[in-house]
Amino acid sequence: MSSRDAPCASRRGFLQRAGLLAAVAGSGLAPAQLAEARREEPAPVSAIEPFFGTYQSGILTPAQHQSYFAAFDLDTRKRDDVIALLRNWTAASAHMTQDNNTDAPAADPDVSCDSVETLGLSPSRLTLTFGFGAGLFVKDGEDRYRVATSRPDALVDMPQFAGDQLVEARSGGDLSVQACADDPQVAFHAIRHLAQLGYGTARLRWGQTGFLPHSPPGETPRNLMGFRDGTGNPSVRDEAAMAKFVFAGNEGPAWMRGGSYVVTRRILIALEHWDRTKVDFQEQTIGRHRATGAPLGRKKESDALELDAADKDGNPVTPINAHVRLAAAASNDGAKILRRPYSFNDGVSYTAERWPPWRQGMEHDAGLFFICYQRDPREGFVKIFSRLSKLDMLNQFSTHTGGGLFACPGGVAPGEFIGEKLFAA
Amino acid sequence: MSSRDAPCASRRGFLQRAGLLAAVAGSGLAPAQLAEARREEPAPVSAIEPFFGTYQSGILTPAQHQSYFAAFDLDTRKRDDVIALLRNWTAASAHMTQDNNTDAPAADPDVSCDSVETLGLSPSRLTLTFGFGAGLFVKDGEDRYRVATSRPDALVDMPQFAGDQLVEARSGGDLSVQACADDPQVAFHAIRHLAQLGYGTARLRWGQTGFLPHSPPGETPRNLMGFRDGTGNPSVRDEAAMAKFVFAGNEGPAWMRGGSYVVTRRILIALEHWDRTKVDFQEQTIGRHRATGAPLGRKKESDALELDAADKDGNPVTPINAHVRLAAAASNDGAKILRRPYSFNDGVSYTAERWPPWRQGMEHDAGLFFICYQRDPREGFVKIFSRLSKLDMLNQFSTHTGGGLFACPGGVAPGEFIGEKLFAA
Repeated sequence: MSSRDAPCASRRGFLQRAGLLAAVAGSGLAPAQLAEARREEPAPVSAIEPFFGTYQSGILTPAQHQSYFAAFDLDTRKRDDVIALLRNWTAASAHMTQDNNTDAPAADPDVSCDSVETLGLSPSRLTLTFGFGAGLFVKDGEDRYRVATSRPDALVDMPQFAGDQLVEARSGGDLSVQACADDPQVAFHAIRHLAQLGYGTARLRWGQTGFLPHSPPGETPRNLMGFRDGTGNPSVRDEAAMAKFVFAGNEGPAWMRGGSYVVTRRILIALEHWDRTKVDFQEQTIGRHRATGAPLGRKKESDALELDAADKDGNPVTPINAHVRLAAAASNDGAKILRRPYSFNDGVSYTAERWPPWRQGMEHDAGLFFICYQRDPREGFVKIFSRLSKLDMLNQFSTHTGGGLFACPGGVAPGEFIGEKLFAA
Repeated sequence: MSSRDAPCASRRGFLQRAGLLAAVAGSGLAPAQLAEARREEPAPVSAIEPFFGTYQSGILTPAQHQSYFAAFDLDTRKRDDVIALLRNWTAASAHMTQDNNTDAPAADPDVSCDSVETLGLSPSRLTLTFGFGAGLFVKDGEDRYRVATSRPDALVDMPQFAGDQLVEARSGGDLSVQACADDPQVAFHAIRHLAQLGYGTARLRWGQTGFLPHSPPGETPRNLMGFRDGTGNPSVRDEAAMAKFVFAGNEGPAWMRGGSYVVTRRILIALEHWDRTKVDFQEQTIGRHRATGAPLGRKKESDALELDAADKDGNPVTPINAHVRLAAAASNDGAKILRRPYSFNDGVSYTAERWPPWRQGMEHDAGLFFICYQRDPREGFVKIFSRLSKLDMLNQFSTHTGGGLFACPGGVAPGEFIGEKLFAA
C-alpha cells in the first residue's frame, strides 16, 4: 500500500494551508474561548524551537528533558513513495514543532488524522531530526530508490566492537527520527504521527525513550551512574568547533553538506553492581570525582584534564584505563564528537550477572541511550570507541544492546523537504 | 543474605541523624557554595510533598508528571527482615521526598550508599506509596511472617476478567511502591534506592514507567487515545466522597484504617488501529466528544452524563456499550473509584493484529498504566470491571497485559514505619 492510499494523505494539503482558522476549528473551542485559554497559559517563546534552518534542529539545540528515538524500515520499492513520505514528514514536522492545535477534521471529517493527545499543549521545544540508514541506499544488495551512488563513504558499515551485544530488533533501520521535547507526550505524539503518515510505506523498527533530569540551569546533568555526563563536550556555541567536528563540509556528497552523522547506542548499565562498588573505585573508573565532576585530583568540573599528572610515587593520577582518559581528544588524535545522550528506564529484565555473587534474576533494564553527532564517524565514534571498547574500565558495567548509524542531511528552507538534495541529485 | 549484611544498612543511622550538615557534607559543596546554588535556583515550596500524614501521599496528591510503579517479591523467611526493610524504606522515603542532597559518604565512606543521580535536583514533588500484596500474608500456602490472620477480606484474589492477558512477569508481587514525581530521574532514583536498601531481602519483580502531559492548569489531561481521562473522578477535595469511596474505615482490620486498595492494570492500546478509525466512531466508543470531553450531545466537559437521553428516533444518545455508560456510577450501583492513571510508551513490540488487514509486525508497545484507589476493590474495580470487561466497546482496542492488587496501609507519623500497625497486631 503506498502512502497515496493512506487516509491522512489529504492532510498534506491541510498542513500547507494551516493557519489560525484551521487551528481554531480543530481545537473544538470558539475563537473567544481559545483566546481566553491562551491568555491564561501563554506559551513562552522559548517553548518553540525553529524547524527550518541551515542545520537540522535537535543537534545543537540545548537538550530537552525527554526524547523518543525511532527507526523505520521502508516497505516500498518506489522512489516516489519515499519522496512523498519525506515531503509529508517535513510538512508535518514543520507544523508540529510550532503548533499543537493539530486536530484537523476539515481535511477529512471522517477520519482521525491526528490522535490529538497534544491538543492544547505547548510545542514543548519539540525538535525532529531525520537520518538515513544504509538501507535507504542499498538493501539486500538492491538499489531500491536509485540513490546507491550517493551513499556517503562516511556512512560506513559499523564494525563489530569488542563486547557488542547488539540486538537486531533494537538496531539499524532505513530511516531514523529523533524526537526531543520537554513533554514526553509531545515527543511520542510526533513519532506516532509520523508513523501514521507513513502507514504502508515506513514501518516502525524500534523505538527508545529517554529522559534527562531537571538539573539547575548551567549544571551538567548526571546520568544513572551518578556522575555528570557531558562535561568535555565541545561547546555548541563554538562555530569553528561545530564546523570542524560536527557538520559535514565539502569532503562528501553535496547533499550532505551541513548534515551530520548520528551514532546511537543503547547501553545497558549494571546498576545493581555499580551501586555496590566503592565511590573511590567508581571515581577511578570514570576518572572524575563523583560529587563535583572535577578531574581526579582537581577541584572543579571545569578544570582541565591533566592526563600526565602523577602522584608522589609517580603513578598516574588518572588510571590508564579510566573512561575520561581513553575518551579524551588528547588520546584520540584530537577526535571529538558532540554527545547528546539520554538516560532510559525500561523497567526490569532477567539478568545473569557476570560477577560474584553471580546473582540471577530481575534487574533494572536501564542505562544510557547514547547519542552523538559528528562530521565523520570514522574520525569520531568509530575511532574513539575502538579503543574504549577494548580498554575502558567502565565496560565491566556496560553492555551495548542496540544502536545505529544514520546520515542526517542538512536543514531545509520552507518549501523544501528533508533530503530533497539527495533525491534531486 | 539478610538486610543486616547489606552495605547500606548503616545508612539507617545516617537517615535518623540526617540534617543540614549531613546534606551539605554529602553534596560535595562548601556550605557557602550550597547557599549560593540555592539562591540561584530556589526549590519552590510546592516542589515538596509531605511524607507523614493520616493517609499515604500519592493517593490524593495531584498527579505528578512522571511515575515509576514497582513490585517486589520478598526473598526472606524472617518476619524481622520484613520489619527492618519497612523501617529502612520508611526512613529513606521520609528523607528522599524532602531533600535530594543524599550523598552520605560520612555513613560509610567506602561504599556508594546512594547513587546520587538526584544530587542537586529538587525533590520534584516525589511521593512514595507502599502496598502489600497477597504474598506478604500467605505465599505458596505458607504464612512466612505470621500475618496471615491479618489479611483483609478486601485483599481478594483477583478474578480472571474477560479478555485478561496478564503476563506473569508484569503482575502481582509481595510489595508495591508507587513513585511519582515531576522529574523522571527522581522517580526512578527512589525505586532504585529502595531496591538497593532491600538487596537480599526484596527483589524487583516488575516495574512500569508512566507519564502525563504538561496540560494547562485545571485541564483534564488527554491519554494516548486523545480523549480527556479522569473527567468523572470524585474530587480529592471532597472529604466525604474520599471517606466513602477511597479510604478504608472500620469494616476491615484495624491496621488498614485510613488505608486504601490500589489496583493497577497495564493496558496495551492498539494505537495504530485506533488512529485509523473515524472520530465519530471513537466518540461513540468512549461516549464523549473528543475535542471538548463533553458527554455526547452536550457542550462542556463538566456537563452531566444523561444516560437516558434519546435522539429523535428514540435511540440512546450514548450507545449501550459506550465506555462512559458502563463505567458510570449510575450503572454500577453508585460504585466509584479514584483513578490516577499514567500513559506509558515502552517502544515497539511484535503484534499480530486482530482485525483487517490482519497486519503483523512491530507496533507501539504503549497504552495506559491504569492505577485506581478504592476503599474495597469488591465494591470498586472488581464490580465495575466485571461488566466493562465483557461489554465495553473500548475492549477491541485494549488488552490488559499486567497488573496487581495491593493493600496500602494508612499514613505514618514520624518515628513510625509503613505497616507498623500490621506487625504490631
